[in-house]
Amino acid sequence: MATATEPHIVSIEEIREAAERIRGVATRTPLLAWDDTTWLKPESLQPVGAFKMRGAYNKIASLTDAERARGVVTYSSGNHAQAVARAARLLGARAVICMPRDAPRIKIEGVERDGAEIRFTGMDSQERHELALRLVDEQGLVMVEPYDDPAIIAGQGTCGLETAVKALAPSARVIGVEPELAADGKASLESGTLVTWAAEQTGRTMADGLRTNSLGPLPFEHLRRFMDEIVTATEEGMAEAMRQLARRGRLVVEPSGAVAMAAHLG
Amino acid sequence: MATATEPHIVSIEEIREAAERIRGVATRTPLLAWDDTTWLKPESLQPVGAFKMRGAYNKIASLTDAERARGVVTYSSGNHAQAVARAARLLGARAVICMPRDAPRIKIEGVERDGAEIRFTGMDSQERHELALRLVDEQGLVMVEPYDDPAIIAGQGTCGLETAVKALAPSARVIGVEPELAADGKASLESGTLVTWAAEQTGRTMADGLRTNSLGPLPFEHLRRFMDEIVTATEEGMAEAMRQLARRGRLVVEPSGAVAMAAHLG
Repeated sequence: MATATEPHIVSIEEIREAAERIRGVATRTPLLAWDDTTWLKPESLQPVGAFKMRGAYNKIASLTDAERARGVVTYSSGNHAQAVARAARLLGARAVICMPRDAPRIKIEGVERDGAEIRFTGMDSQERHELALRLVDEQGLVMVEPYDDPAIIAGQGTCGLETAVKALAPSARVIGVEPELAADGKASLESGTLVTWAAEQTGRTMADGLRTNSLGPLPFEHLRRFMDEIVTATEEGMAEAMRQLARRGRLVVEPSGAVAMAAHLG
Repeated sequence: MATATEPHIVSIEEIREAAERIRGVATRTPLLAWDDTTWLKPESLQPVGAFKMRGAYNKIASLTDAERARGVVTYSSGNHAQAVARAARLLGARAVICMPRDAPRIKIEGVERDGAEIRFTGMDSQERHELALRLVDEQGLVMVEPYDDPAIIAGQGTCGLETAVKALAPSARVIGVEPELAADGKASLESGTLVTWAAEQTGRTMADGLRTNSLGPLPFEHLRRFMDEIVTATEEGMAEAMRQLARRGRLVVEPSGAVAMAAHLG
């Protein structure tokens, strides 16, 4: 029997509703043949350069007019930050972004170009989370969680809907990849409980988008149910994957976007 | 009244038939927002890195089984070469490619990877054309023209079909762009007759895909009818366009693929 503490596992219907909501805003990226048995889904070609556009727009578009009028706030190392800034601009909402001082300049500039206000913090994801919570309290802003929210998860899930994985093709195997220098996800899934890695540890990887110190509780529940395996990529592997994606795939991909190819190249 | 010498102007129906033929082989590339009023159609993400896949596959798929059994031959500086090699492999035909000795290594490797036979020539496009014609005579191979063939033009036209330009949206303006160092097309359209530039002239541009010495007669007739204007891009303009497409558009584009953006950045 369902109880109040049971996690909200996102349904295929919620993902389909999200797909309707983001139509024409997020790009329906093509499937590109890498070789005879491998396809790429280049989410690097989304408006803000990452799949994060899907979740952020779905969330902010799901708010009531009254909520949007209050403005939104989020905390992010960069990609979700840019996605919230863009989605808020498109939907006419004020946006405040808490992001680390050492985020890549191109991501900071992207947020500024969309007219969002930036509040800088240190590199610990806990620190920017706390600042965002304070702004919710002090200014009445609506929190747009970077991952721990069903609307965000459903939005990101639209990417899978376009490839018909898992729910639509249950025999597909879903393999997660993260940097071995920021493998808090693997540690969490292997121990069966949420593990946090210190910012000094996760900060070692060049994949700035994957330095978050722990999985969110809700993504953790989804990964436990829907992911078959999680593996790690080395820094050298990501660098080689970035080179091959540029030369052969003609795609400029940030390190965080190269982890999956790094695992594939093995 | 139509005469035997009247050019075969490709119809929208022929383009639609081509679109059916190439479905699932050429990628339906997305439209990517560059800014609030500009969209990119990244044909660099086609299987061989260029729109040439559309025309080559349409042509070879249109041949009879008997023709395909004889094998195909073409002449190209690189992109059409790769497209013919790939299309021939997919359709089970032998392919012989006449290409310049100084073609980019990555394009030569692409042709080899698809198992086509290469015959090297100098950099004059007339020279490789003559070699290809000789192979048609000597070996009974079927010529796959790089541009001067309605099936090729219809195939390339499928790209426009996906953006609904011109025939579907007659108010759209179509602007051609070529390097100012290889502006034989502009010279031809301005003089109203086909103008040839020497290989020493067109060879000066870094846009190796646009060094052909003259337009084909049939493309010339199409450009006269359907293109509103033709402008040129400088070498510096192409280099800057490549940089911006990589940094902001996350696309690795060859110089020939950057001329349009160079003109846009102006």
